[in-house]
Amino acid sequence: MQKLEMLYEGKAKRVYKIDREDAYLVYYKDDATAFNGEKKGVIEGKGAINNRVSNHLMSMLEEKGIPTHLIEEISDRETIVRKVTIVPIEVIVRNIAAGSLSKRLGLPEGTRLKMPVLEYCYKDDTLGDPMVNEYHILAMDLATKEELAKIAEYAFRINGILTEYLKDLNIELIDFKLEFGRTPGGEIILADEISPDTCRFWDSVTGEKLDKDRFRRDLGSVEEAYQEIIKRLMGV
Amino acid sequence: MQKLEMLYEGKAKRVYKIDREDAYLVYYKDDATAFNGEKKGVIEGKGAINNRVSNHLMSMLEEKGIPTHLIEEISDRETIVRKVTIVPIEVIVRNIAAGSLSKRLGLPEGTRLKMPVLEYCYKDDTLGDPMVNEYHILAMDLATKEELAKIAEYAFRINGILTEYLKDLNIELIDFKLEFGRTPGGEIILADEISPDTCRFWDSVTGEKLDKDRFRRDLGSVEEAYQEIIKRLMGV
Repeated sequence: MQKLEMLYEGKAKRVYKIDREDAYLVYYKDDATAFNGEKKGVIEGKGAINNRVSNHLMSMLEEKGIPTHLIEEISDRETIVRKVTIVPIEVIVRNIAAGSLSKRLGLPEGTRLKMPVLEYCYKDDTLGDPMVNEYHILAMDLATKEELAKIAEYAFRINGILTEYLKDLNIELIDFKLEFGRTPGGEIILADEISPDTCRFWDSVTGEKLDKDRFRRDLGSVEEAYQEIIKRLMGV
Repeated sequence: MQKLEMLYEGKAKRVYKIDREDAYLVYYKDDATAFNGEKKGVIEGKGAINNRVSNHLMSMLEEKGIPTHLIEEISDRETIVRKVTIVPIEVIVRNIAAGSLSKRLGLPEGTRLKMPVLEYCYKDDTLGDPMVNEYHILAMDLATKEELAKIAEYAFRINGILTEYLKDLNIELIDFKLEFGRTPGGEIILADEISPDTCRFWDSVTGEKLDKDRFRRDLGSVEEAYQEIIKRLMGV
């Protein structure tokens, strides 16, 4: 599959036009950023790990009835995905308080929430991805009521599926961020990625962080954490 | 009615125990604060105006079927209210973008929202009253699902009633903040106040601000704005 024009370069991925009307090619980089781009770095081998981890998890979700953008992994760092328009909302699901939630609500990191919490942030770097609720989303025409209901339903189902799956690998799913896309036909499907860049994974025995927080917080052994995740998920 | 022990002193009001089991006495001060207490000042006569304006609006809401804490105005600055436990959530309804919403979402002040927007903030001064959504509220046990449904229903009905009423007085209701309380019997009722301290009122002809933004933003004629509101509402 030939990469044609680059359509978009994000913080961790590039998206290319290809010779196929209904699809794009996604290329995963090793670049890492945090705190809305204020901190920048490289996590050696991350692109290849995230590509494979995300495809692995999305395949599993597809099998369980969640529509995703995944078409085919074509190399270590490259995947063909369905062409969508991204809904400009970050969809966050939280099981245990950590990160911005802990800070904002004064809940000590590690506090189990009484029930999973769904949050939306408006994807806008210049505004710092502010938190919004369903009323803001509807008033700003970011999604329709029907789309939002679908997104919430999928987000909670994905949380259930991933939590269960990871538990057997001694990984606790603390929280994660999803993005959804609209197909040309108007269908809502899961897009973007699911990886240690977009999830908080804690070793359920030792409590060790196995995700991008190691980079964000300068905890060391960043590459090793990503490798540990792919090893537990895929045995490699 | 004799004021007994002072139970609570807030930024703009004091609450006293009285010789009656089911009620408190609220005393309205002239003190004004903004930006989570960072800015402090006095608005001469504000306490008396807010007491009367709030009681006037709450009486009207009661007549239209919204239960409120109002029992009886007993002096210029004093009102007897039903005893409640305040639900620790600020309930904000917005019709037109202004203030923190404009800043957070990059919507120019004065932008009419496609539909009224409901927001919740967790009442906690040390955290700066952070915005929360329904999932946070349930996960933190700040209110039950049934209470929240009641609160949302009342908030939108109050918005409709007030918008309509103020329109005839050439006042545009931009946004406002409500607080609700739980009675000992578990009923949700409107509490706190509705006044130029807690609403944005714009003159619908000139666009002039007739509310606490004159104090927050040092626009001058602060007292005059409060007097203009009581004059339009009560003809005094």
